[in-house]
Amino acid sequence: MKIAIAQLDYHVGNFELNTSKIIESIKKAKSEQADLVLFAELAICGYPPRDFLEFNDFISLCDQAINEIASHCIGIAAIVGGPHVNPSAKGKDLFNAAYFLKDGTIAKVIHKTLLPNYDVFDEYRYFEPNRVFECIELNGSKIALTICEDLWNVSGKWNGIAGQARNDGKSLYIDNPMDHLILEKPDIAVNIAASPFSYTHDEARTKVLQKNASTYNIPFFYVNHTGAQTELIFDGCSTVVNPEGNVWKMAPFKEDLQYFELDNIKKGIDSQVYDKNNKYELIYNALVIGISDYFNKLGFKKAVLGMSGGIDSAVVLALAVKALGKENVLPVLLPSPYSSEGSKLHSLEMIKNLGTDHQIIPIEKGMLAYDEMLSKVFEGKAADLTEENIQARIRGGILMAMTNKLNLILLNTSNKSEIAVGYSTLYGDSIGAISVLGDVYKTEVYALATYINSVQGNCIPLSIIQKAPSAELRPGQKDADSLPPYDILDPILFQYIELRQGPKEIIAQGYDPTLVYRICKLVNMSEYKRFQAPPILRVSDKSFGFGRRLPIVAKYLG
Amino acid sequence: MKIAIAQLDYHVGNFELNTSKIIESIKKAKSEQADLVLFAELAICGYPPRDFLEFNDFISLCDQAINEIASHCIGIAAIVGGPHVNPSAKGKDLFNAAYFLKDGTIAKVIHKTLLPNYDVFDEYRYFEPNRVFECIELNGSKIALTICEDLWNVSGKWNGIAGQARNDGKSLYIDNPMDHLILEKPDIAVNIAASPFSYTHDEARTKVLQKNASTYNIPFFYVNHTGAQTELIFDGCSTVVNPEGNVWKMAPFKEDLQYFELDNIKKGIDSQVYDKNNKYELIYNALVIGISDYFNKLGFKKAVLGMSGGIDSAVVLALAVKALGKENVLPVLLPSPYSSEGSKLHSLEMIKNLGTDHQIIPIEKGMLAYDEMLSKVFEGKAADLTEENIQARIRGGILMAMTNKLNLILLNTSNKSEIAVGYSTLYGDSIGAISVLGDVYKTEVYALATYINSVQGNCIPLSIIQKAPSAELRPGQKDADSLPPYDILDPILFQYIELRQGPKEIIAQGYDPTLVYRICKLVNMSEYKRFQAPPILRVSDKSFGFGRRLPIVAKYLG
Repeated sequence: MKIAIAQLDYHVGNFELNTSKIIESIKKAKSEQADLVLFAELAICGYPPRDFLEFNDFISLCDQAINEIASHCIGIAAIVGGPHVNPSAKGKDLFNAAYFLKDGTIAKVIHKTLLPNYDVFDEYRYFEPNRVFECIELNGSKIALTICEDLWNVSGKWNGIAGQARNDGKSLYIDNPMDHLILEKPDIAVNIAASPFSYTHDEARTKVLQKNASTYNIPFFYVNHTGAQTELIFDGCSTVVNPEGNVWKMAPFKEDLQYFELDNIKKGIDSQVYDKNNKYELIYNALVIGISDYFNKLGFKKAVLGMSGGIDSAVVLALAVKALGKENVLPVLLPSPYSSEGSKLHSLEMIKNLGTDHQIIPIEKGMLAYDEMLSKVFEGKAADLTEENIQARIRGGILMAMTNKLNLILLNTSNKSEIAVGYSTLYGDSIGAISVLGDVYKTEVYALATYINSVQGNCIPLSIIQKAPSAELRPGQKDADSLPPYDILDPILFQYIELRQGPKEIIAQGYDPTLVYRICKLVNMSEYKRFQAPPILRVSDKSFGFGRRLPIVAKYLG
Repeated sequence: MKIAIAQLDYHVGNFELNTSKIIESIKKAKSEQADLVLFAELAICGYPPRDFLEFNDFISLCDQAINEIASHCIGIAAIVGGPHVNPSAKGKDLFNAAYFLKDGTIAKVIHKTLLPNYDVFDEYRYFEPNRVFECIELNGSKIALTICEDLWNVSGKWNGIAGQARNDGKSLYIDNPMDHLILEKPDIAVNIAASPFSYTHDEARTKVLQKNASTYNIPFFYVNHTGAQTELIFDGCSTVVNPEGNVWKMAPFKEDLQYFELDNIKKGIDSQVYDKNNKYELIYNALVIGISDYFNKLGFKKAVLGMSGGIDSAVVLALAVKALGKENVLPVLLPSPYSSEGSKLHSLEMIKNLGTDHQIIPIEKGMLAYDEMLSKVFEGKAADLTEENIQARIRGGILMAMTNKLNLILLNTSNKSEIAVGYSTLYGDSIGAISVLGDVYKTEVYALATYINSVQGNCIPLSIIQKAPSAELRPGQKDADSLPPYDILDPILFQYIELRQGPKEIIAQGYDPTLVYRICKLVNMSEYKRFQAPPILRVSDKSFGFGRRLPIVAKYLG
C-alpha cells in the first residue's frame, strides 16, 4: 500500500481555496499511484473555525465541499477532516470527523473521541465525543483511524496537556480510543491532526507517536496542518513512525506532499535520524510564517512598525523583512526630545543593512499640543507617568494614521516580559494588528536576535543588542529602574505563566519572596491591558491571548 | 425544615471577603433557626474563576476557606459551591462541587454532571463531569443536590443553551442527573447556580425550574449569585418552586437572605405571581450594577467619559451617575471644528440636569499637530477617513491622559450596532476600561434612554433623543451616510449574532439580499477591532467578547 500525506496551509472559512488545494493533491497522489491520501483535521474549513461552527450555513458549505472532494476520489481513497452533523436528538450538534472517501463517495465517517478543551482548544464547545469504535477498510487492509487528541492520552508527561511538563503519571481522559480499535487487529493507524506549534511541541508529538506505535505495535501515519491562522501557527512536521520507533518527518512550516510505501515503513527503510531542532530556529521560522500568513490570507502587502532603537523593534523589523520582503516593510522613527541620538543612529544603521525604506516623524509637536489641550485640566499637577504615556499614544496615533492613509498593517513590537508585567502603554506601544514577539520573553528576544544575525547577514547592529533596555520616555530612563533584570524576571514569569506555579512554589525554588509576590501581582493586575492586546503569534506552550483566560476584576494575588 | 437561601455578591479570588460573607450568613441563618443555608456555585472563589483554577495554590486557598466555613456549621447545615480535587489518576484535575457542611465538617461532596461549555462558559476546560449519583441526607430528609446546568437538560426551548431560541426538541446532553437522583425518592431538590443575567434569562430559568419541579414532583430550592464579575452580571433572582408551579422569587440585582418553611412551600403559602420584567428595567439595573461592581471590586471611585452630544454617551452618563453618584462622574466635551453647537448645548443641558462636574477640551490643537507631524509623509494625499480617525484618537488620548493623571476610569460609550459593523475608530472611540452599552443595539439604546428618563427625572434632553445620529467627524456627517437605518440594521444583526442565522436564512425572512450580505460581511471583517475591544457588560444571550469567539484571519462571508 502506498500512502500519500498532504500537508497543506488551509484558510479558515475559505472553502474555495481549501477544496481546490485538496482536490489538486488528490489528483497528484493519484498520478503517483497512491492508494490513499491523507489530509488534516478539519481541513475542509481550516482550523480553528471557532463559532463559525454554530452557523448551519457554514456547516452546509463544509458538506458541499466534502461531497465535491468525494467525487474526485475514484481510483484513490482519501481521508479528510471536517465537521459532521450529529443525527441524534441528544448531545451537541456536531462531531469532529474524519471522512473516508472512496469510489466517488463518502464510504465512512469516523468521529473524534477525545476533545481537547484546554489552552487554545475549545473543542467541547462544539463537538459531541465519539462513543463507537470501528476501523475502516481499504484494499483488504484495516486502518485504525483517529483524530489528533485521540492519541494523546498515553500516560506520562505528554498526557494531553502538550508540553505542560506534567510528570505526575496522570492522564487527562478516562478512555483511550486506540484501546478499542486495536481489538480489530488493524494493519496501520492513521491520525489526522491540527496540532499547533510551540517550540517544544514537535518533540512531544514525536514521542507520543512513537509511544503509540510501540504500544499498539503498528505503524502510524500522522498528518498535520501547516501555516498560520491569526495567532495559531502550524508547523506541519507530519510524521510516520513504525513500532521500532523509526521516524519519517515531513517539512516544517511549509506545504509538502510525500509518499510512503507501507513495506518500507515496516522495514524502517529511509527513516530519518530525528533530532530536536534549535529553539530559536523554530521560533524564527514560526514567526516568519506567522507574519506572512497574516498578510497573505487577509490580502495585505505592506507592514509598518515603529522603530525605537531597541532590540524588540529591531527583531520585528528583521522578521518582517524576511516574511514580506524589504520593499513591503516601512520602519518609522518617532523621536521625542528624550530619544537618544544613539537610538536614531542604530535604527538607521539597521534600516540601511536591510535596505528598506523608512520615515522619521518627530513627535514633539504632538506633545506640545497635548500639553496645551490639557493645560487647564492638569493645572498645578506635576509631570508623571501621564506624560510618558502621552508620548507612546502619539506614536500609536501616527502609526495608525499611516495604516489608514497608506493601506499598511501595523506590527506590534511588545515582548512577552513587558506584556506580562504591564510595562507598556495601553493604546500606545501596545497596539497593532498582530503582535510578533508577544510570546517571546525579553531574554529570548536577545537570543533570537543572535540567531537572526546568523541567518540574515548580521542585520541587527551589535549596538542595539548590547545597550541597556530603555523606553526613553524621560531623560536617562532604563527598564531596570522599574523592573528587575530580565534574567531574573523571565524565569519567574515562566514559572508563573507557563507552569502555573503559585508564589509559594516559586519562592520554594529559591527566589526572593518580595520580588516573587510583586511580579505575580503585576501579572494579575495587568490583565486589563492584555484583554485589549492584539492577537499574539503563539510559539510557547502558554501564550497570552486565547490560551490563557483570566478574569480582570479579581483579587487573587492582586 | 427551614431552608435559608443566601444570595451574595462574591468577588473572584477574594477569599477573605467571600469567606466572611458566607460565615456571616451562616450565623444569621442559625440565629433564625434555619436547618440549612444554601450558597451559590463556586461561591468560595467567585464565578468565573477561569484559569486561576489551574493554579494549585488557588485550589489550596479554596480548600482552606471551605474548611474554615465548615467549622461554623454546628447546629446548622450549609451547602457551598467550590472546586474539588479529583483524586483519580484519570480525568481532569477538578470537579465543580457542592460541599455539604454539617457538624463542623465536610459531610459530603457532590459533583456537577453537566458542564456548560458554550457562550461564556468554559467549564469542561477545568472540570471532570460527575458519573456517580447520590442524594444527601439532613434530619431524615433526602435532598437531591445538583449544580446549575444539571437541571437544564429538560427538552424543549430551554435546553442548556439559555435563550438561544432552539425549539427543535433536542437536548444538549445525553444524561439527566435528576433522572438518577429521583430514584432515591428525595424530599426536596436543591440547585446551586452561577447563572448570569441576560434580559431573557430569568424567564427561562423560572420555566426550567417549574418544569423540573413538575417532572420530578418535588420542590426545588435554587440559589444564584448576584453582582457583576467584569463583563458577567448576575441578577440573583434565587427561586423556590413547588410541583404545582408556585414561585417564590428573591430580590433581583442585590444581596438577599430569605427563609423558606418546607411545609409552606408544599402548600403554596405566600407564593408570588411571577411576571416577566420590563426588558429595559432589567437592562438598566444590570448595567448600573455592572458599572458599580467594576469600580467597587477594583477599588476605584471616579469615572470619566467623552460626551459627544449623542444618545450613547448621554445614556452612559446617566447610568454612571446612578451607579457611582454624581460627584464621581466626570463628563468631558471634546469638541472639534466639526462639532455642532447643538451637541455642545445638549451635553451641557444634560450635565446641568444631573449636576455633575464637567470639562470642555477642544481638540483642534491636536488635529493641527497631527497634520503638521504627518505633512511630509501624507504630502499630496487627499483627506479621507484617516483624518476622522485622528480626531477620535486624539479624544481617546486626552481621556486616557486624564485617567492617568487624575486616577479616573474611562467608560466606553460604543453601542452593539456600531461594534458589530465596525463603525468606530480602533484606539479612538472604541477604548475604555469597560464597555457599558456594547451589548445594547442602537435601537435599544433609544428605548433605554426613554426608560432612564422615566426613572431619572427626564435627565436626557429630548433634543439628544430626537436628533439624527452622527459621529460629527466631518461637516454634516450622519450615520445614515454609511449605514442603513438602525431599525433595519439591528434586526439583521440580531438574526446574525444572537440567532446565528446565515445570510441565506436572513434573506429568506424578506430582507434585501445585497444589504444582508453587506452587513454580515461587515460584521465578520470587524472581528479584528472587537478582538481589542474592552470587556462588554453582557445583557443579551449573545454578547461580543468571551461568549462569541470568531477567528480574525478568516474568509467566511469576508
